[in-house]
Amino acid sequence: MTSVLWAEHSAPELREAAARGAIVILPVAALEQHGPHLSTMVDFRLCGEVAKRGAELATARGSEVLVLPPVWSGMSDHHLPFGGTVSLPFDAFRAVILGIAGSVRASGFARLFVLNGHGGNVAALSVILQEAATIEGLRSAGATYWLLAESEARAILEDQPGVRHACEAETSMMLAVEPGQVRRERLAEAFGGAPATVSAGTPDPVIVWRDFAERSTSGVIGDARRASAGKGERLLAACSAALCAALCSPATWTKQAP
Amino acid sequence: MTSVLWAEHSAPELREAAARGAIVILPVAALEQHGPHLSTMVDFRLCGEVAKRGAELATARGSEVLVLPPVWSGMSDHHLPFGGTVSLPFDAFRAVILGIAGSVRASGFARLFVLNGHGGNVAALSVILQEAATIEGLRSAGATYWLLAESEARAILEDQPGVRHACEAETSMMLAVEPGQVRRERLAEAFGGAPATVSAGTPDPVIVWRDFAERSTSGVIGDARRASAGKGERLLAACSAALCAALCSPATWTKQAP
Amino acid sequence: MTSVLWAEHSAPELREAAARGAIVILPVAALEQHGPHLSTMVDFRLCGEVAKRGAELATARGSEVLVLPPVWSGMSDHHLPFGGTVSLPFDAFRAVILGIAGSVRASGFARLFVLNGHGGNVAALSVILQEAATIEGLRSAGATYWLLAESEARAILEDQPGVRHACEAETSMMLAVEPGQVRRERLAEAFGGAPATVSAGTPDPVIVWRDFAERSTSGVIGDARRASAGKGERLLAACSAALCAALCSPATWTKQAP
Amino acid sequence: MTSVLWAEHSAPELREAAARGAIVILPVAALEQHGPHLSTMVDFRLCGEVAKRGAELATARGSEVLVLPPVWSGMSDHHLPFGGTVSLPFDAFRAVILGIAGSVRASGFARLFVLNGHGGNVAALSVILQEAATIEGLRSAGATYWLLAESEARAILEDQPGVRHACEAETSMMLAVEPGQVRRERLAEAFGGAPATVSAGTPDPVIVWRDFAERSTSGVIGDARRASAGKGERLLAACSAALCAALCSPATWTKQAP
Amino acid sequence: MTSVLWAEHSAPELREAAARGAIVILPVAALEQHGPHLSTMVDFRLCGEVAKRGAELATARGSEVLVLPPVWSGMSDHHLPFGGTVSLPFDAFRAVILGIAGSVRASGFARLFVLNGHGGNVAALSVILQEAATIEGLRSAGATYWLLAESEARAILEDQPGVRHACEAETSMMLAVEPGQVRRERLAEAFGGAPATVSAGTPDPVIVWRDFAERSTSGVIGDARRASAGKGERLLAACSAALCAALCSPATWTKQAP
Amino acid sequence: MTSVLWAEHSAPELREAAARGAIVILPVAALEQHGPHLSTMVDFRLCGEVAKRGAELATARGSEVLVLPPVWSGMSDHHLPFGGTVSLPFDAFRAVILGIAGSVRASGFARLFVLNGHGGNVAALSVILQEAATIEGLRSAGATYWLLAESEARAILEDQPGVRHACEAETSMMLAVEPGQVRRERLAEAFGGAPATVSAGTPDPVIVWRDFAERSTSGVIGDARRASAGKGERLLAACSAALCAALCSPATWTKQAP
Repeated sequence: MTSVLWAEHSAPELREAAARGAIVILPVAALEQHGPHLSTMVDFRLCGEVAKRGAELATARGSEVLVLPPVWSGMSDHHLPFGGTVSLPFDAFRAVILGIAGSVRASGFARLFVLNGHGGNVAALSVILQEAATIEGLRSAGATYWLLAESEARAILEDQPGVRHACEAETSMMLAVEPGQVRRERLAEAFGGAPATVSAGTPDPVIVWRDFAERSTSGVIGDARRASAGKGERLLAACSAALCAALCSPATWTKQAP
Repeated sequence: MTSVLWAEHSAPELREAAARGAIVILPVAALEQHGPHLSTMVDFRLCGEVAKRGAELATARGSEVLVLPPVWSGMSDHHLPFGGTVSLPFDAFRAVILGIAGSVRASGFARLFVLNGHGGNVAALSVILQEAATIEGLRSAGATYWLLAESEARAILEDQPGVRHACEAETSMMLAVEPGQVRRERLAEAFGGAPATVSAGTPDPVIVWRDFAERSTSGVIGDARRASAGKGERLLAACSAALCAALCSPATWTKQAP
Repeated sequence: MTSVLWAEHSAPELREAAARGAIVILPVAALEQHGPHLSTMVDFRLCGEVAKRGAELATARGSEVLVLPPVWSGMSDHHLPFGGTVSLPFDAFRAVILGIAGSVRASGFARLFVLNGHGGNVAALSVILQEAATIEGLRSAGATYWLLAESEARAILEDQPGVRHACEAETSMMLAVEPGQVRRERLAEAFGGAPATVSAGTPDPVIVWRDFAERSTSGVIGDARRASAGKGERLLAACSAALCAALCSPATWTKQAP
Repeated sequence: MTSVLWAEHSAPELREAAARGAIVILPVAALEQHGPHLSTMVDFRLCGEVAKRGAELATARGSEVLVLPPVWSGMSDHHLPFGGTVSLPFDAFRAVILGIAGSVRASGFARLFVLNGHGGNVAALSVILQEAATIEGLRSAGATYWLLAESEARAILEDQPGVRHACEAETSMMLAVEPGQVRRERLAEAFGGAPATVSAGTPDPVIVWRDFAERSTSGVIGDARRASAGKGERLLAACSAALCAALCSPATWTKQAP
Repeated sequence: MTSVLWAEHSAPELREAAARGAIVILPVAALEQHGPHLSTMVDFRLCGEVAKRGAELATARGSEVLVLPPVWSGMSDHHLPFGGTVSLPFDAFRAVILGIAGSVRASGFARLFVLNGHGGNVAALSVILQEAATIEGLRSAGATYWLLAESEARAILEDQPGVRHACEAETSMMLAVEPGQVRRERLAEAFGGAPATVSAGTPDPVIVWRDFAERSTSGVIGDARRASAGKGERLLAACSAALCAALCSPATWTKQAP
Repeated sequence: MTSVLWAEHSAPELREAAARGAIVILPVAALEQHGPHLSTMVDFRLCGEVAKRGAELATARGSEVLVLPPVWSGMSDHHLPFGGTVSLPFDAFRAVILGIAGSVRASGFARLFVLNGHGGNVAALSVILQEAATIEGLRSAGATYWLLAESEARAILEDQPGVRHACEAETSMMLAVEPGQVRRERLAEAFGGAPATVSAGTPDPVIVWRDFAERSTSGVIGDARRASAGKGERLLAACSAALCAALCSPATWTKQAP
């Protein structure tokens, strides 16, 4: 099986894939603080991993998929005071995604799936996908990778309600794919944030933009001490399978208005 | 009790209210198609009603609140093909809200609550509130009015999962406050949309921007035939009480960055 | 006779009106200080009143007209220091008007008349109408309501040269339509501004942007002590008749270049 | 007496002039069709002439004034179909004027007078001057040169109501300062436009953006056949004197917000 | 021979030139400090001179060329601290050039050559020309006038590597065309800047934006004491001939995308 | 020695590096067609390689350097017709770089070096670096990696004048670091473009934006058939050494305005 990564293909190979109707995934994530125990790569590393695995599963099922390199600069203003963080304003984040979307279309592809790997991007992505849909001929859809498998994640994890930040879930997945990027000697500090008082799946209806440091002094929300590579592998498998299902579902690629 | 409406006060009265620490509500909604049976005013009429009632409740409880006139032009591109609809691009919608937010601060107020009354504005509002928070000194928060009382709404309504579009809920509330704007002779046509397959409170994780007409040919999602003024009054009371609670909660007005 | 208000119609009714060639009026005004005696609603309340009356007159004469809700946020920076004032920067003011204009066209209407009710919007409106004209197929025109009946106003009013700010004219019209919004106990303070040294109808050719407080410490320019409901009713009738004439005049809707 | 032209001075000379409190004039005009008989330079040539003469008069009276080169690209969309015309969109026109205004301030000057020489710029200039005033420390004012001497112009000219386009007035002034740019063999065609039905000084209150060609097929509004160099010299003298008066008037440079 | 200056032609004459396929030159330069001995006009005066001479040569050779007035406001932030300088931000500089380019096309011309006369504009111009090329149907090219004749300039000048700032070259050319704008009594101070350590034609590959005052306290880079009118005339002739060659070369006007 | 890659560090580690005065490199490149024989990753893969090697050399010499992940989306419009290419408009490219630059500063770093790896970005980068310099406190510099070692490259390569596109140089470097991304079976087709008629180091002074396909039908400019891994290793070593020298040079980090 050849690579699902766009960057590992030549232009003639990509023209052929476009002609065959391949789907394109654009991973978008962040480069930001993830507590004392994790490298700042977490969001784009894991998002890229799920994108690649999901693309391989879908391609094996007959829906050819190609994965662009990740946009590693997301909307992370609330993490800036922790240092080590890159954050774009909304307008810059939108400009880069729409610019890439236009190029995907200009390169002959008709379908784009934006896979998000960072909580701070969720609302922005919803706005941007609407604007992308107005690029005539490009069918676009998107999702945040862990929301694709929320109930599976809750079954795997002790910490509820699932994937939070630099938490049991993210640390587990990093242990599974990049164990060298987890500082085990600092795991003992790696917990924090208010206990989850909102029931699972129901976000607080009152929107208040808060600096992350108000919510957790450690930079962690959740409890990374419960992490394990085994849980991480199961989480990645669940998210990748859900992504594959979304890519292969006709409902995802219904006709859209320009 | 004096009026809670900003527009019914003179500038000297408003300067005094600002000096007393009054909260300001900005209702933002839409002017758009609401099926064959409802006037296009629904979203801004109901959002303004909840804002006014919530402000009166909070003021009676000792938290003085003033309500700006509604921004009646929202993000409704998906309704444009039905006619009778006004829709702003995101940039215009943001510009008007941020311009008003800056004026609220310039007029001496320190706290702004943006109350939303239209589903198409939800993601945009989240992005905009983050930008509003960066206006130094203006504490801002927001919510979509029916999401403040989602479980109460499900208890009141037959149609699940609650408030949808031109539906049992919206039609009931209009029967309660503007019965002349409900065309009873067309109620028989006023239903549509796919049955709710996603369990209540869990939005589909895959984001696909769709023209509304793909989802309902009548312009209705839900079933307005079940509407009644009694249900409407109970819904308005529940939403207004929840808004009052949010306005009076210290958690809403926690110190915000920058 | 059915309502001339867009918001009181359903989408199917508005589609039919568009098909019949109805004209659309967009009132644009302001929410700003109007001295110690008037509520801040004056500009959008009176502009909306003239729009509604003018639309009814024109519809009765056979030119069907629909009136959008007013854009109540105008360009009022010069009033901000008085408090109680909302002001948009030019770019935001333009964005909302052009966004609405585009929607009017998308909803099937071919003609838009922007009726202005605030002095600070006059130059901006001229710039914006030129840009609106480039929206192919939408014929647009506009006017400031009291300038449509300037000579009639001078005949009605003692204070010359006519309509100024929170003055004999505006107070009279508010007494006619919203007497509860006039604080009679503060009328004695309600005058100010330099005497009119420029002859009527000839604006000072030197443009200098000045804070309003440099021109009047009371927030009034003119003399509201001379106001009466009778004068107000005559003013509203004159402006509405002039608006009707403009709406019905073929010269207003001459073919325009895109 | 040294030159009043900024461009004819070295940087050290201009630093000294700034330290002495000199006023700066920025002429803004257009490069556009002016009928069959006039070169396209008319607006910026005449505006620059009035600016230079007015500056010399004011300097002689003790108010030192420097004149920047003219911005020759204005807002002339309505003339584009005639050919030979350059037109900027509003945003570009504003960007260049505000960029220059900021540089004038950065170069140490405190007062800027924008002298306009083109009808299509009038409303835009009013909007732009308000934005320029918000550049802290830069006092800005402006005027359209012929409106400074409207009554004098009406006394000089046969054609009423005064200065129109490629008309008796503009042709006379060009005969006075650039006779080689007037094609006398085509003067016989150089008239057009509707007769002036609106009384002098009272612009039509209904704003409709029209292509110039709808108003005159010759590109002229007015009657250039009545032009003479003598009238032109008197017009230039009247405008220059009025500009000098405006520059020297304390009312022009009153303290401005913010 | 008639004038090559656009501004000296009427609209009908320009329409005919467009129909004959004339090329248009837009000179873009700067108004900025040029040491103690030169007026601030240098860049736009010399750029306009080369444009005019090059256009006359090309027209005589059968390629009709018209020259717009110069855009005298360039990108000169690094000179602002010297005073007497006007500088636009990139966005304003781009807006005015693209606005003019669009008008050139709207006026019926198909080819635009942007001739630059200021070092600070070089990179910006490259970006802008790419955007201009996307204006369908307008073939655009550009050059900085002294880079067209770099080897000739080195042969004429003592100071190496050629044209720098307010230097032997620029002073010589001003002596040739505007001797009254050279202050001979200050020539003795008119030298400065680091000696040229980078070999001719090879710019330093490391880009660091520096304030000009860090490089020269006199505002001069090079040595104006070596200037003469004779050298200036030879430089202008060399640049004009090279411009003529570029205008007449088919390689300049090759078909461009899109 | 610890990693020089920002993404492999935790936030606390990066805060400490910032406090120690570390320099940050941002690689910016492209994802675009590179002939029939190379993957589309070439520009960002090689630019990232040189950045990493240069950072390691500088760190070993005592100047600590951290490398951000590459911005892989550059300005490649001229390659779009070949397929497989992503290209941003200038505004998006600028927005993402300036957004990252602001975050680098917010994360406590004072010096940013933007290392470019794509010819289409060169002029844009120059404009952007000027704007980045106005971010107070952030000293910024930049270079295109192969221009740092142009004379060394010419000594290594047969094909003159050095690094072109998908050429001997780029193919050699890919053979050195990513041999699996070179399709040897298509090397025979991998040459094209006009012979280099401009002498080395002297770019054509006439700027004409051309579609790449006008210059080469194979997508190659130069001759990749002469490539070897040995040459590639020597090129990478030369570029990395030159980058290290630039990073360690005090001239790169001279005080910048404002």
